[in-house]
Amino acid sequence: MTDGPPDASDKAPERPEQAFKPRSTREVPRFAGASSFLRLPFHDDPRDVDVLICGAPFDGATTYRPGARFGPRAVREASALTRGYHPASGVDLFERLRCADGGDILCVPMEIERTLENIRARVAEVLAAGAVPALVGGDHSISLGALRAVAAHHGPVGLVHIDAHADTFGPAWGVDLHHGTVFRHAQQEGLLRQGGVLQLAIRGPLTSASDLDFAHAAGFELLMIDAIKRDLAKVEARLARAAASGPLYLSFDIDAVDPAYAPGTGTPVPGGLTSYEALCLVRALAGAQLVGLDLVEISPERDPGGQTALLGASLLAEALSVLAASR
Amino acid sequence: MTDGPPDASDKAPERPEQAFKPRSTREVPRFAGASSFLRLPFHDDPRDVDVLICGAPFDGATTYRPGARFGPRAVREASALTRGYHPASGVDLFERLRCADGGDILCVPMEIERTLENIRARVAEVLAAGAVPALVGGDHSISLGALRAVAAHHGPVGLVHIDAHADTFGPAWGVDLHHGTVFRHAQQEGLLRQGGVLQLAIRGPLTSASDLDFAHAAGFELLMIDAIKRDLAKVEARLARAAASGPLYLSFDIDAVDPAYAPGTGTPVPGGLTSYEALCLVRALAGAQLVGLDLVEISPERDPGGQTALLGASLLAEALSVLAASR
Amino acid sequence: MTDGPPDASDKAPERPEQAFKPRSTREVPRFAGASSFLRLPFHDDPRDVDVLICGAPFDGATTYRPGARFGPRAVREASALTRGYHPASGVDLFERLRCADGGDILCVPMEIERTLENIRARVAEVLAAGAVPALVGGDHSISLGALRAVAAHHGPVGLVHIDAHADTFGPAWGVDLHHGTVFRHAQQEGLLRQGGVLQLAIRGPLTSASDLDFAHAAGFELLMIDAIKRDLAKVEARLARAAASGPLYLSFDIDAVDPAYAPGTGTPVPGGLTSYEALCLVRALAGAQLVGLDLVEISPERDPGGQTALLGASLLAEALSVLAASR
Amino acid sequence: MTDGPPDASDKAPERPEQAFKPRSTREVPRFAGASSFLRLPFHDDPRDVDVLICGAPFDGATTYRPGARFGPRAVREASALTRGYHPASGVDLFERLRCADGGDILCVPMEIERTLENIRARVAEVLAAGAVPALVGGDHSISLGALRAVAAHHGPVGLVHIDAHADTFGPAWGVDLHHGTVFRHAQQEGLLRQGGVLQLAIRGPLTSASDLDFAHAAGFELLMIDAIKRDLAKVEARLARAAASGPLYLSFDIDAVDPAYAPGTGTPVPGGLTSYEALCLVRALAGAQLVGLDLVEISPERDPGGQTALLGASLLAEALSVLAASR
Amino acid sequence: MTDGPPDASDKAPERPEQAFKPRSTREVPRFAGASSFLRLPFHDDPRDVDVLICGAPFDGATTYRPGARFGPRAVREASALTRGYHPASGVDLFERLRCADGGDILCVPMEIERTLENIRARVAEVLAAGAVPALVGGDHSISLGALRAVAAHHGPVGLVHIDAHADTFGPAWGVDLHHGTVFRHAQQEGLLRQGGVLQLAIRGPLTSASDLDFAHAAGFELLMIDAIKRDLAKVEARLARAAASGPLYLSFDIDAVDPAYAPGTGTPVPGGLTSYEALCLVRALAGAQLVGLDLVEISPERDPGGQTALLGASLLAEALSVLAASR
Amino acid sequence: MTDGPPDASDKAPERPEQAFKPRSTREVPRFAGASSFLRLPFHDDPRDVDVLICGAPFDGATTYRPGARFGPRAVREASALTRGYHPASGVDLFERLRCADGGDILCVPMEIERTLENIRARVAEVLAAGAVPALVGGDHSISLGALRAVAAHHGPVGLVHIDAHADTFGPAWGVDLHHGTVFRHAQQEGLLRQGGVLQLAIRGPLTSASDLDFAHAAGFELLMIDAIKRDLAKVEARLARAAASGPLYLSFDIDAVDPAYAPGTGTPVPGGLTSYEALCLVRALAGAQLVGLDLVEISPERDPGGQTALLGASLLAEALSVLAASR
Repeated sequence: MTDGPPDASDKAPERPEQAFKPRSTREVPRFAGASSFLRLPFHDDPRDVDVLICGAPFDGATTYRPGARFGPRAVREASALTRGYHPASGVDLFERLRCADGGDILCVPMEIERTLENIRARVAEVLAAGAVPALVGGDHSISLGALRAVAAHHGPVGLVHIDAHADTFGPAWGVDLHHGTVFRHAQQEGLLRQGGVLQLAIRGPLTSASDLDFAHAAGFELLMIDAIKRDLAKVEARLARAAASGPLYLSFDIDAVDPAYAPGTGTPVPGGLTSYEALCLVRALAGAQLVGLDLVEISPERDPGGQTALLGASLLAEALSVLAASR
Repeated sequence: MTDGPPDASDKAPERPEQAFKPRSTREVPRFAGASSFLRLPFHDDPRDVDVLICGAPFDGATTYRPGARFGPRAVREASALTRGYHPASGVDLFERLRCADGGDILCVPMEIERTLENIRARVAEVLAAGAVPALVGGDHSISLGALRAVAAHHGPVGLVHIDAHADTFGPAWGVDLHHGTVFRHAQQEGLLRQGGVLQLAIRGPLTSASDLDFAHAAGFELLMIDAIKRDLAKVEARLARAAASGPLYLSFDIDAVDPAYAPGTGTPVPGGLTSYEALCLVRALAGAQLVGLDLVEISPERDPGGQTALLGASLLAEALSVLAASR
Repeated sequence: MTDGPPDASDKAPERPEQAFKPRSTREVPRFAGASSFLRLPFHDDPRDVDVLICGAPFDGATTYRPGARFGPRAVREASALTRGYHPASGVDLFERLRCADGGDILCVPMEIERTLENIRARVAEVLAAGAVPALVGGDHSISLGALRAVAAHHGPVGLVHIDAHADTFGPAWGVDLHHGTVFRHAQQEGLLRQGGVLQLAIRGPLTSASDLDFAHAAGFELLMIDAIKRDLAKVEARLARAAASGPLYLSFDIDAVDPAYAPGTGTPVPGGLTSYEALCLVRALAGAQLVGLDLVEISPERDPGGQTALLGASLLAEALSVLAASR
Repeated sequence: MTDGPPDASDKAPERPEQAFKPRSTREVPRFAGASSFLRLPFHDDPRDVDVLICGAPFDGATTYRPGARFGPRAVREASALTRGYHPASGVDLFERLRCADGGDILCVPMEIERTLENIRARVAEVLAAGAVPALVGGDHSISLGALRAVAAHHGPVGLVHIDAHADTFGPAWGVDLHHGTVFRHAQQEGLLRQGGVLQLAIRGPLTSASDLDFAHAAGFELLMIDAIKRDLAKVEARLARAAASGPLYLSFDIDAVDPAYAPGTGTPVPGGLTSYEALCLVRALAGAQLVGLDLVEISPERDPGGQTALLGASLLAEALSVLAASR
Repeated sequence: MTDGPPDASDKAPERPEQAFKPRSTREVPRFAGASSFLRLPFHDDPRDVDVLICGAPFDGATTYRPGARFGPRAVREASALTRGYHPASGVDLFERLRCADGGDILCVPMEIERTLENIRARVAEVLAAGAVPALVGGDHSISLGALRAVAAHHGPVGLVHIDAHADTFGPAWGVDLHHGTVFRHAQQEGLLRQGGVLQLAIRGPLTSASDLDFAHAAGFELLMIDAIKRDLAKVEARLARAAASGPLYLSFDIDAVDPAYAPGTGTPVPGGLTSYEALCLVRALAGAQLVGLDLVEISPERDPGGQTALLGASLLAEALSVLAASR
Repeated sequence: MTDGPPDASDKAPERPEQAFKPRSTREVPRFAGASSFLRLPFHDDPRDVDVLICGAPFDGATTYRPGARFGPRAVREASALTRGYHPASGVDLFERLRCADGGDILCVPMEIERTLENIRARVAEVLAAGAVPALVGGDHSISLGALRAVAAHHGPVGLVHIDAHADTFGPAWGVDLHHGTVFRHAQQEGLLRQGGVLQLAIRGPLTSASDLDFAHAAGFELLMIDAIKRDLAKVEARLARAAASGPLYLSFDIDAVDPAYAPGTGTPVPGGLTSYEALCLVRALAGAQLVGLDLVEISPERDPGGQTALLGASLLAEALSVLAASR
């Protein structure tokens, strides 16, 4: 006899305290019903939850292939297969955290500043309610809106940034704010804690020798892809130290992962993380005080099978488990 | 000056009486937010609406390629692009009908009779509330559940059945109830009005000469694909007469349409309807007293671009417009 | 009650005289078992059958996109969905014709002449046995091998050629024998009956004004795409006359059909036939004395959903029905 | 013997006067070499040619699915299969017109007005040189840049606009200039000849009853999809009259065509043109004085097989043939 | 000089003793002919062979995405590229084992118990003939049918189970027998040797903390994904010990492998095995006394390129080599 | 402030010395303009450059799935995302090497010897000009044409060959020269330096035990896939020694990489390199005296997302960096 069916986790009628957990698969099979992040209920008010997951469907700052405006929809759909209990950590994230799908923030493809302001305002609202904001992009520019609110609430924060690109680059075609500049702007606006920025999985080739000058000058610590590939345990240990260093914001760009695992993204770079490595990097933050997080650059167009979004949904659950583990 | 923006139809704040219309694209752009049928609100109680659209994600009766359990999800997602005003008829369906997405009926892939009973019960509930049930399948077997409720409520009804197959066939591997037998069962159970069954777009080849014997013996009227291809206007006129003949149930199997237009289905048959012809056939029912309808056999697997589901969503809106036109 | 189940046509144990019919779906469901043309048994010896269908997996004469060597495999797989009884004609092809899948002729991608000789020899063997050869290509060059055998057996034959291209063109890069030259060679070798060549669905644009000079000089009759689109019935009548004109070879290049219906081909041309029109053109040959036929240029690479091969399998069955109707 | 090889049209060494024709397939097979529009040479200076085809890779004004910035690349690649001689008209467009691929205009995804100005300036340059500008988009907003230059050069012009949408809609999310507003802006800016606007293939459903008010008030003539489907010859006759009415600008939005034929577009609408109808509509303009033309909204993401871009390349050649026919 | 052509291994005419080897590529190139498992002859009678490979095209027990009924067809097609000689082990499996494709067992999608009984009966027949049964699924429920026959013949057997899921879960929607329960049922029915069950590549997250209770209580040994990723050699050593422990049944669920390598499966889980690791795990069983094996959950729908089935075919050959190595 | 924008590397007008660098992204965004290898200018004359990259679009020697004739086009398109500066080595390849896209060599699908002669002649011309030839295939047979020229110029050369297959096999169907025989022919023609051939990533299964006899007899050193997977650093060290051993030719067959990373190839073999390993193997040659290189067997058909070609473009840049590092 077993009482843990994979698709029928709760046999009792839903009790009030279960309101912010994934819908029971007994009532709504994984293939059925409205798609929401991690099968959570849609709920607008952050005061009722510990974590509010919001979509930020914006790709107006993309320099190559757009499509990340469909990222939230893709992650919601792929979320059908996600679950909440981690056998390794022994943590059931939904037992510890009340979570909800907060819907999508109004993003206007043609207006980046208006969009960032909408994101900032929504994140500020979540933070003011005492909840943790989790964003699903959208291109990487959305992180700037979130960081503005986070820094306003918490002061300059530490950053764990997992990405193929440093995103501290200069203007493109004279446009100063695009998806490859977000952490330069965040640094220039004073949103990041000095010495608290860790960038992982960055890899070349780059356009020129000066591409990483800004990151180096700003004191960002870069753990290039080689460091991870050659000694994963060492990098995990480095992340564990970062986890103990104070409030952190986690920004995960799916192109950190190799195109074989994450073909659905706008500026893919070969030679990246495996899905296992990606999950390990997030998991290594166990115990961190995450004050916000985002998952960006998932663009479902080049990924009809949906494996990118499925990995994204898994990374989202993994990050929430980090949060749960610290409660 | 214009006041009809394509993606911002209502500038005023939402009024109560707008509650059962598609969400304003001003608040939720077409690429954003939760996917629902025709962008309608999710709502459980049929007493508040004129039409309740429910998913029936069941493909357990499929004899060839399964996957139609993902039909409701695909149609919801494709619904992002649908609209409600028909310039030809001058009818705005959402002005005349309060509509909602009633969610999915619990369908168990391994248990067809239990599933049909769940469908029957939900459809009966909708009918009892005075609303019209619209189902999105799922394979064609779901129609039997719906027709059982409809006939219980209205008595035997007329049927307009648009499909590549007559679905009056015999058992397969000794299984008497599969998706190719639904209208044989409906007839045998006395759910259909004598002389009131019209089958359109049926085409061969068939397995044997006797394949259509049941349909002929039962007095079903078959308008084979040639009739439609060679004189569409004549078939439209025939449908207009059917529309005036009393309560009708409309069952649209997407494989009526050619695989070029609807590749995402389980048993495609070349030589079918164009999308234009399909829309015309439904439109020709203007004025009909539709007491229920379904759209079945959309299976998104073979259709990564989503054109089948988009056509399905359009046919759904078209059918609701027929309903709206009679109000 | 019905006795015509869609997937279980014969309930009695297989009798000897059923040996050359499609396998019973009662024993092998459509989704199961080895794939063969029209679900027929594999059989090598043409003396036992009326029609032997052989694959000719050759694409070594392709000037643009290769891949047609996988055409026979794709058509076999798609054949899972085909059936044999035509409600319009009232003919069940498998009641009238003993058919088998004769396997694939050895085709060597690098050696066109050796390949054509292998094809010629196999077709000659089939003809000598009194059976009708039906080939599934492969690129269009395979027709030349077949026509050499057919003309050797029957003398110069009439030809109904349905294609986007006339295939009477000149050398490419100095190579005189490629897939766009097959009917020029057939004519030059005296394989075609004077005045007996009908080319349908040809369309432009062409490379130069002289592209059709050969066809015109040779007295080929061209029914360009406009003729078919503007008056299908008239073209069907023309084909009916052709059907009465003596021994005919039918060569159907799938690119006659529009890329929407047949994306899986090497040199697609927009503005082509619909699947319905394609089937009608073949059907219009009812009563013809077909002495051989081929279906070429199906290349499954660009058609993951398999709709091209499914249409091909349907056209193959349609052509066999024409043959059956004359028995 | 034939002298019209399909892939080797010119045997003599290239002569100077051949400089602005497609590259000889004798030297560069269709599957080889750099992709350019219609296999034409890249050339920057419009003074040397009759037609300069320029890409306008901009999709920053897209309200639903972006990706049209890759339209020019896709059309160039698909152009490998195009040819120049029309058997129906007897016109070889490259014999009559010196044509070149003018490269892409610098389009900045985040800056629509700057992009439109770049387009305007390039089109003005082409017109000043006495050449005809042909643009390949990009989303439909690019037409506004072109029309500004055309009207400045020729005065208000007639417009033949083939599209599923009227594109005279209002703002979206407060953004007044997006891809669904281009002809409202063109009209408001006085770029269009009064009474000289013909819109074809427009179809519903629409967002609201007022959606076409602007077009009606502005005196645009709308030939809805039904008109074309029910009597193509009549619509062709109407276009022939338009062709005789003075300088015309042709704007072809690929979503005029049904998604079965053109899945690769951002806002597809079922029930559209077939590829044959689309080609016929353009062809019906034979003799028109085209002063500019564009082909927009081809977005290759949802069309891995490339059939949308191939149709686009064919429509481009067809439009140039219209131009050639008037020389 | 070389005598080992890649595609023409035997130049002499086929000798009788070669009857149960892959067809010579000299006669049937890899791209040609009927598709069969590992290019083996179809043969019904297990008494003539050492291994009979049978398809079990059943997906009626699938809780999420169906489609595994097409697994046997996909593996047969992908088998075109497989070969038999392992340079590492020096074993040519087809030199040591007479193998054949036994066709597909009749599986009825709507009737799981009847299907399992058909599977059991066929496997029993193979075992009774002294041959080893190898099954290609189908969803994981098919293993239960096989294990019933194996245990009846050999008594309770050891099990090496490679999978992302433990498949010892509870009922779903009240259905006790679905594809996630197969080893719970096998254990409850006494089919497995106590202490002889090894589960590899299992990974979370799980639905709840109790999900693995059954496996733990039953004494199954779980080697979670981390164990494999962090020390593959150690796990290989563990498997080598298992190989020496008596009769084993090997059950390989393709979702053990990461979705990057095996996208074509119904319930993919990120963070899985690489193809190299998967092949190593099977290879590590060298010398084992395999009494039966299966390969399940290959569903080609989401994998148009066929890489999942190709990996499946390779794993099948790898498992047969394990068997060959012990002869 | 930073001066290294990702997409706008040079703000000054192009200076002459910049002529053989990638086009500035300021003028031509990555999504725009003609596709060329690494965004380099097209240039015919090798005397002006250090490296001339030429396409060799030939797949006439393919034994399984053809399509590599579209490899050069696919790599050019994917090159949009490549960059030139390696942060690890500190080398900007375009600072050290003048590079250009030399267009495609005329390859005739039906004539392998003529094609190899065209390749030989072009490579000889490049070598005579003192430049290094880099070829993008095409199937592996093209390497033979290149090696003939290289050996004529430099004498027998060392070879680093990265591939799943040894390509020293025997004839297929009596055809002695196909893509699996290229290094047997090169050895037999005396083009390779005795003791200077290193083959990496070779893996089984093979057709027979004798498959590697030729390679062994010829003294080729094989580093099978296990060697790389189990100790990458050791293999890198071996390559570093090879790099110091004199003139080398590098031949990279993309099927060395696992199908998960490189699905777009004609004869994929599971269990291969990751993209990271592939890049490392090339990088390990730093300092080598490369006298020529090729990248072969990229076939975009099975890879609509283009990840294979993107990896190919990255490997090409990596190989050029090796060359740059030695200058």
